[in-house]
Order: sequence, then C-alpha cells, then structure tokens
Amino acid sequence: MAKELKGALIIGQSGGPSSVINASAYGVIRTALDADCITKVYGAQHGIKGVLADRLYVMDEEDAGELERLLYTPSSALGSCRYKMADPDKDDTDYKKILEIFKKYDVRYFCYNGGNDSMDTCNRISKYMKKAGYECRVMGVPKTIDNDLYGTDHCPGYGSAAKYIATSLMEVGKDARVYDTGTVTIVECMGRHAGWLTGAAALANLTERTVDLIYLPERDFDMDRFMADIDRVYKANGNCLVAVSEGVHYADGSFVSEAKTSATDGFGHAQLGGLAALLAAKVKAELGCKTRAVELSILQRSAAHCASGTDIAEAFASGKAAVEAMLNGETDKMVGFVCDRTNGYKCEIKLFDLSDVANFEKKVPAEWINADGNDVTAAFVEYALPLIQGETPMEKENGLPRFARLKKVFAE
Amino acid sequence: MAKELKGALIIGQSGGPSSVINASAYGVIRTALDADCITKVYGAQHGIKGVLADRLYVMDEEDAGELERLLYTPSSALGSCRYKMADPDKDDTDYKKILEIFKKYDVRYFCYNGGNDSMDTCNRISKYMKKAGYECRVMGVPKTIDNDLYGTDHCPGYGSAAKYIATSLMEVGKDARVYDTGTVTIVECMGRHAGWLTGAAALANLTERTVDLIYLPERDFDMDRFMADIDRVYKANGNCLVAVSEGVHYADGSFVSEAKTSATDGFGHAQLGGLAALLAAKVKAELGCKTRAVELSILQRSAAHCASGTDIAEAFASGKAAVEAMLNGETDKMVGFVCDRTNGYKCEIKLFDLSDVANFEKKVPAEWINADGNDVTAAFVEYALPLIQGETPMEKENGLPRFARLKKVFAE
Repeated sequence: MAKELKGALIIGQSGGPSSVINASAYGVIRTALDADCITKVYGAQHGIKGVLADRLYVMDEEDAGELERLLYTPSSALGSCRYKMADPDKDDTDYKKILEIFKKYDVRYFCYNGGNDSMDTCNRISKYMKKAGYECRVMGVPKTIDNDLYGTDHCPGYGSAAKYIATSLMEVGKDARVYDTGTVTIVECMGRHAGWLTGAAALANLTERTVDLIYLPERDFDMDRFMADIDRVYKANGNCLVAVSEGVHYADGSFVSEAKTSATDGFGHAQLGGLAALLAAKVKAELGCKTRAVELSILQRSAAHCASGTDIAEAFASGKAAVEAMLNGETDKMVGFVCDRTNGYKCEIKLFDLSDVANFEKKVPAEWINADGNDVTAAFVEYALPLIQGETPMEKENGLPRFARLKKVFAE
Repeated sequence: MAKELKGALIIGQSGGPSSVINASAYGVIRTALDADCITKVYGAQHGIKGVLADRLYVMDEEDAGELERLLYTPSSALGSCRYKMADPDKDDTDYKKILEIFKKYDVRYFCYNGGNDSMDTCNRISKYMKKAGYECRVMGVPKTIDNDLYGTDHCPGYGSAAKYIATSLMEVGKDARVYDTGTVTIVECMGRHAGWLTGAAALANLTERTVDLIYLPERDFDMDRFMADIDRVYKANGNCLVAVSEGVHYADGSFVSEAKTSATDGFGHAQLGGLAALLAAKVKAELGCKTRAVELSILQRSAAHCASGTDIAEAFASGKAAVEAMLNGETDKMVGFVCDRTNGYKCEIKLFDLSDVANFEKKVPAEWINADGNDVTAAFVEYALPLIQGETPMEKENGLPRFARLKKVFAE
C-alpha cells in the first residue's frame, strides 16, 4: 500500500469531445469525491488553460444526480482546449504557473482526459512536478473517437462513434437504395491519420451488404482506382454506398481534400472536411450518375443518444480506475484496456507509461485492410463489434435528452 | 354500411422516404391482410412505376414478424419513385396501363403513400377510374418529413425528423461550445418551401438556449441581416449556432444556395444542398471567426433509431384508417389528422378530399415566425412538441437496428 497522500484533485478535459468523455470525467469525479484523502475535487475550465488561468470549478458543490447525468451528456462538460505545452527545457513559464496553482489549492492528484496531445501534456506536467520536487500523482484518462492511442486495446469514445456510424450507414443505405434510378452516396467519416472510424462502416454490413466500398487513410489513395471501383459497383448494382475517411491522401502525403481548405487547428493539424462533396462532384462529372455527399461531421462525436452501453461503462471504469490507481501510489501513467475476444468479450484495465503513449498514433493494422484497399477484413469487424454493444439508458425530458446541468461554481 | 367490394389492394410508396413511411405501409398491409373482402395485398415496386411495369410484390407471402418490423424500418421498403403523371386529358397512356393492371389483378383498392405530388397522382388515378367506370376505391396515406400537406394538422414522418433535428442540435450545441475560442456553427435542415423542419430546431431550446438563430424559407432571406445577426450573437456570447433551411431564398425567389448547383429532381424541383458550407465560408471570410457547417442531409429523414414513438403510432394508425375507410366505401380521400392541444394532446383521424390536398403546400404561419425573422415563436414549439414524444421500441441485433427483411415475391 502506497503512502497516503492528502490533497485536492484536478480533472481537466482536452481535445475534441466525444459522446462519453463526460462518463470518464464522472468516473474520476465520483471516485474522488468518495475518497477520504482527496480533500477537494476541482474541474479545470477548458482543460489546462483553466489551470493556467486559475479557473477551477468546485465539483463538491454539484448535485449528485446532475453529476451522474454526466454519464449520458456528450461533449466536454468542463470545457475543452487545444493547447500545446512548450518544452519545459525551453520555456517553463506555463509549468511554473501550474505548480503555483497546484500549491495554491494543495493539488496532489491531476487527471487529464483526452487524446494523444493530452497524454503528452500530462506526461510533461508529471515530469516537471517530479523535477520540481512537488509530490503530485498524475494520470491520463484516454478519450478519442479516433481510437488511435498507443497501447490500449481501444479508447473510450470510439465504440459510441462506431455505433453511430454503423447505425447511420444502415439507415442511409436504406434511403440511398429507395429509387430505381441509382445513386452514388459518399459518406465522410472523421479520422485524420487512422481509419478506425471509417472502418466501423463495415459493421453496417453484418446482416446485409450495405456499404460497398471503404477507404482508410492507412492506404495511399488512388483517384483512378477509386473511380473504377465505384464505376464497377454502380454498373453491377445500380447503386453504390461509399465510406471514406476525411484523412485519405495521395502517395505523396497530400490530403485529397486539401484543395478545399487551408485552415489548421491549434496543434497545426490541417483542418479537413468537405471531402465527400468534392468526391461526389467528381463522380457525378465523370460517371454521370446522381450523387449524394454526407459528412457525418461533429454529429459522429456528439451523438450521445446513440452511445454504446459498453462504451459508457468502460469510460466510467477508466476514470474510476485512474483515481484508484493514484490512491494506490501510481503516477505518470495512462489508464487503458486489455481485451480478450476469444470466448466472448472481456475487458480489463491496465496502466500504460505515459511516455510510451504520448504522441504515438495507432493505425489500423495493414492485415485488417483488404488487398484492394477498399474494405476492411472480418478481423476488423470482430475487433469492433463488442465495442458497440448495449444501449444508452439516457433519460429523456419532453422526448429529448436530459443532459447534466452543472452549477459550475468557481473556486475562490 | 357501404356495399361490400371484393378484390385486391395495391399499396405504393412515392417521393422522398421518411423514418416512418413503412409504419404507414404496415398499417395498410396488416389491416388489408386481415380484411375478409380484400383478396390479395400487393406492394408496388417503386410506387406507380411498379404498377405501370407490372412489378408487384405479394405481401401475403411475407412473414408476419418481418412485416411488423416495418414499423421500425426507415426508407420506403417497397421502393419509391419520383414520377409525374401526365394530365389524362392530354396523354392517357399511363392511365390505360394502370387500368389494365388493376383489371388483371382485380384491384379494387389502391393506397398511395407519399407527399404532395403523390396525392396528385392518387387524385388523377381516382378520377380516371371513375370516368372509366371501373370501381376502385382510392386513398392517400400522407408521408412527408416536410410536413407541408394541406388540411392535416401534421404529416407522419415529420415528428421523427423533428425529434432527430432537435436531438442532434442539442448534441451539436454541446459540442460547438466546448472551446473558449468560439465557433459559428451552421446547420442546414431540409425543407424547400416550408420551414417546419428547420423550425424544429427551436425544440432544442426548451431547457437551455442552444440554437441562437433560425431561418425559414417563409421569410425572404437578407444576407446583410443574416451576417449582422451572427455578428451580434457571436460578439455577445463568443459562439453562435444557426439552423437554416436549405430552401432560404432572396426576395426575388432565387435560392441562396443556387449558385452551388443546377441539378433538378424528377419533378423539376431544384435539388438543393451545400448551403451550410456556403454560408459558413461567407461568415468566416467576413467575420473572421472559426466556422463549421453541418448538413443533416438524408440522415434527418432516415434516422429510425431516433424516431418518435408518437409518430410511429400515428403513421400506423393512418395506414390502418385508410383501409378501414375504403372498406366503408370511402374513396378519393387522404387520411389526415385533427389535433387538440388544449388539455394535453389529442389526435383524431379525419378524411380530406384529395383534390383539396393535391399540390398545395402548407407553410409555417407567418405569426409563428418572430418579427426579426430569425426565430420561431412559442406557438410553433407548442405545436411541434407533442409530435416528438415517445421513443422507438426498435429491436437491436448486434447493437444495431434490426430492420424488416422482406422476401419480395413478385406476383405472376
């Protein structure tokens, strides 16, 4: 048993939100509120920016029932940020400020709930505190619909987005085949560098062939082959439904959608979008058929009404495990999952070193993409299927979602 | 009691599908299968085109359990069409063919499940049969997410689309406010000439202001006022969520989206889309803020997983009532609803003359739009709210919708 460490906890959320990021945060908050040696539980407004700006919500002030509704409330309830921390050896201004805030509120536990960049932030803070001799346990709680975090079997947020994508494609597939005149429908899924979300389109094919072609960013995109694939399917079936990742790129690395936008997000990543419309216009011009472009956009990361019950439970469990691990003396780790799918689905918590996780992107394995590069294999479906099981017990009010209503009382 | 008429029934589906059009069809099919004097129940493949081409499915051959799943299966299970019937006084080729098919299969009952144009088709067929001295009862079963059919309080399909729009906007609203950097998010809803769908965005504001601005096609669009509205909200709140109808147009009648596309559908209507992207680009260029465009596209008319329980029940009831009315000797009518919202919500079936219904478009009343033309009033919300109540009991398989699987056996 580790030495008992008395002090406050800060939880922050960072990066693009998901349907279940708040379920993870609730796992942290609930467990921390119930822990004797955690004296106070703070939520950082807009992630690390809230720590830097001394904008902390007192979670102890919140109603327990409203906090519980965080399980079914999408997006980051505490507010998120995209803030890249400097290398502390070059510029330690932010780190000094964080240490000052940690001291001010006697913070001895820090949980950061986010994706790759957030794990990097987490790692740097942890290393700095150690160097500064300030005792503080730091734990990353994974979140990303992109499912691209290294080490863990999968990430909370992915299962719900995958369920939404597969459900929507089954529905769109019915709609797209309603006329005898034929349509090529192109559905754009998120995923800059990893095709996990787009691959989830294959789940729509479990009982009936619905999605004809699937293109992931793990394979170089070839426009001629793409057009030939569609032409072949359309001629054979009189219809074609395509799922394509926003991040598909040519062999030289340039994004297919690149001509459309030059904006970048706070981390310097190119901001993508509009690819489906671009491809649909090209198909229409070259093949002369009716086309439709559907961009799942932020719907796919916020559709809590279609969240996976498994994902909600695992998101909560990862938050809970983070606090429990810190209480046991662990630090500088990310909570992740190790899963066994051989006899049903078993998912266990495992801790990963933050320095191993930070800034690596886990891609879809090459052998899970078919030879033609226009579909995923059965192994992908076996991997993803357990993650979308179960429905959300989200409460409704007036026939609409009843989200958590937090008071958000700032610490003095 | 009307004279008993023995013979077969044909049900056809036409126009853009909805989440519950099959619930209406099931109301017709189930009731017809159970009626003694209806000898056979046919489903026309792709609406009236299936009648003309002698492509009829025998619904008697289907499994009862699969038929029941039509209640929760989106899109037109029989296939749809956009086929404009000629004026029979000018060209009666199609009508002669339909009469021939009706005689071949001894069809004495004809139900057509669709929107404005479908009611027109229904009306013309009914008039022609009367003139030709062929006894056949004809009934329109309304369907349109657009909610623009004359006479009836509302149309099956609208409630589910409205529920999806409000739910999605609540979720997108959470997502769009997650950063402290601010975003203008523009969500495009369907509705060429009527703003019922876009107005449903106001339902997302019931518990918390989520959608800031709402633009319906009932008001002429003014780009300068639109930009000024957004600028004002963005400056005040640091964020702005806008719902806009695909059909917004300038005072001269030209669609705001028109520059983007010149395609038309089978009825000669301009095919719209891409408006949100166009407006977002304009906002970004002029106001310099981050923007996001979301087009709900066909998701809003096929999202059966988010269907309204009330809508499903009413869709079924309208199909059932259509057959019961024909058995009672009624013809040349459309089934519709009369509703009372004074003490709770009461909805009763009423028959409307097809000639009154066909080709009129019911708009959102002027007094339900606010003076500034950038929101709807409380009266709109009171109208729409009962229509989105209740959840779908849709069965799941592997965590995904379990849609009806029909055998689709053709009549010999």
